[in-house]
Amino acid sequence: MEERHIKWDGRKLTVLDQRALPNREIYLDLESYKDVAWAIKEMVVRGAPLIGIVAAFGVVLGFKKGGKKEEVFKVLSSTRPTARNLFWALEAMEKVWGDERDLEEKALEIWREDVEANRKIGKIGASLIDGEVRILTHCNAGALATGGYGTALGVVRKAFEEGKVEMVYACETRPYLQGARLTVWELQKDGIPVTLVCDNMVGFLLWKDMVDLAVVGADRVAKNGDVANKIGTYGISVLFKEHKKPFYVAAPKSSWDYSLEDGTSIVIEERDAKEVLEIRGVPIAPPGTRVFNPSFDITPAENITAIISEEGVFRPR
Amino acid sequence: MEERHIKWDGRKLTVLDQRALPNREIYLDLESYKDVAWAIKEMVVRGAPLIGIVAAFGVVLGFKKGGKKEEVFKVLSSTRPTARNLFWALEAMEKVWGDERDLEEKALEIWREDVEANRKIGKIGASLIDGEVRILTHCNAGALATGGYGTALGVVRKAFEEGKVEMVYACETRPYLQGARLTVWELQKDGIPVTLVCDNMVGFLLWKDMVDLAVVGADRVAKNGDVANKIGTYGISVLFKEHKKPFYVAAPKSSWDYSLEDGTSIVIEERDAKEVLEIRGVPIAPPGTRVFNPSFDITPAENITAIISEEGVFRPR
Repeated sequence: MEERHIKWDGRKLTVLDQRALPNREIYLDLESYKDVAWAIKEMVVRGAPLIGIVAAFGVVLGFKKGGKKEEVFKVLSSTRPTARNLFWALEAMEKVWGDERDLEEKALEIWREDVEANRKIGKIGASLIDGEVRILTHCNAGALATGGYGTALGVVRKAFEEGKVEMVYACETRPYLQGARLTVWELQKDGIPVTLVCDNMVGFLLWKDMVDLAVVGADRVAKNGDVANKIGTYGISVLFKEHKKPFYVAAPKSSWDYSLEDGTSIVIEERDAKEVLEIRGVPIAPPGTRVFNPSFDITPAENITAIISEEGVFRPR
Repeated sequence: MEERHIKWDGRKLTVLDQRALPNREIYLDLESYKDVAWAIKEMVVRGAPLIGIVAAFGVVLGFKKGGKKEEVFKVLSSTRPTARNLFWALEAMEKVWGDERDLEEKALEIWREDVEANRKIGKIGASLIDGEVRILTHCNAGALATGGYGTALGVVRKAFEEGKVEMVYACETRPYLQGARLTVWELQKDGIPVTLVCDNMVGFLLWKDMVDLAVVGADRVAKNGDVANKIGTYGISVLFKEHKKPFYVAAPKSSWDYSLEDGTSIVIEERDAKEVLEIRGVPIAPPGTRVFNPSFDITPAENITAIISEEGVFRPR
């Protein structure tokens, strides 16, 4: 993908508004740390690694405009709870707070290193694939979710380059439709064959022997290899286990949280009922319907064939 | 539910247009067998038992208006392939072809006996439930899917009457959203507590121990107990098996197909890509996106705790 979904000109961060994709490509200028916090919270930008990168530039903007350190970090860290990368990036930025140049360089480094990590993940992930395969992915762990190239879609990109991808099945990923809106858009731009399915069709794909493996991203990886990722990931992992097919997670070290022994204590964000009750503004259920809307779930390490990071392959089971 | 979603006045069948629910309640008059075939094909009416009942009245209308037997049955039987009830009802109607009165009485009998079967299923199903439980259901196997009362929702209704239902979790059921649009609407009308979830949240509900059992309907049951039902059912059954919780299927004998040893040869309908690409007319993916849209899947008997029919409980495993 050649498009730049984030741009930094030294004074503001310009981001592609992912809420409007694929119908419209709108860019928004973020000029303060509060703008950045708003963009993360409202999912203008999303995807664990990208949230971390954007938050880092939020710190730069906070310092530049004379924000109070405590306030800047408090506002940015309370945007979304689950992705480890957000806190990882803020911790790195906090260490260089006090010097504008250091802050800017650190943010640019976090961005650049994320893209490099993704390329390594892509290479390592693709090396795990034999022959020409049908790959299932969930949500969007692509260029749009990262500094560029993507984690899960980085593996897909590299494998495609090596002639190993027959088809990608993208789960639409309700309620926010990152699969339908973002993954399909991103893969089509790169000419990678992609078929859209509803989230509840994964079992049938496996039953019909239409997929060979799954690769997804991660929002947080616990020490034992339990993984928090987009809601629905756990169910997919159980189905791949049932069918004895590989289930891979692609996640840079910035998503790993060694302070957690396992995934049980990861905070799962619950979002507004409206995300479920309305699709792109159109109501799909009776008004006032009670909704449960968790944004993530936990996939236990035992369901995961391998976690691919830029440092290598971790096989928790 | 007091509303009459089908009405027969001796000359036409008036049906509630389920495509417009829950936003609008529109009734359509079906005055010929071709009207009826159109209504089944376009999912104005849906749900295996209801399709059978409506098709029976289609035969009555075909005969009344001087239709040729062969043509009437051919058109009605080629509307949708998966639900056994359609063919079961047409076979029953074929036997009395030739006498208008017999035909009308047979159609009314099919309708009446379906409601009676559902009430029996409700009673038997509710008797399997101990204490106050949280029930998951998928798609709509309710009054709207049958002659009245419902199969899976018949069990829910009776269990609720007996004070055994703490909460019903309704899967929204992409792509056609029968859960969000129909099940939620139907249960709310009866004052039964219901929470809407996306299809990909079932795993998390089980992981968080928020549900106790699942009950779903069926479009076709093979001799060994394999079940064809709405896409997503199979995945749910695997998750309930993984969590060692009961997974029930509620299906009248009119859904059973003893000609099939197992479910592998059941024809799975694939529907238009548009159902996935547009939600209530709003596009959710790039134009021209490739889609796979199977309407049903097969749940193997070994994943099913019990199949509840009006004749009793069948435990295939």
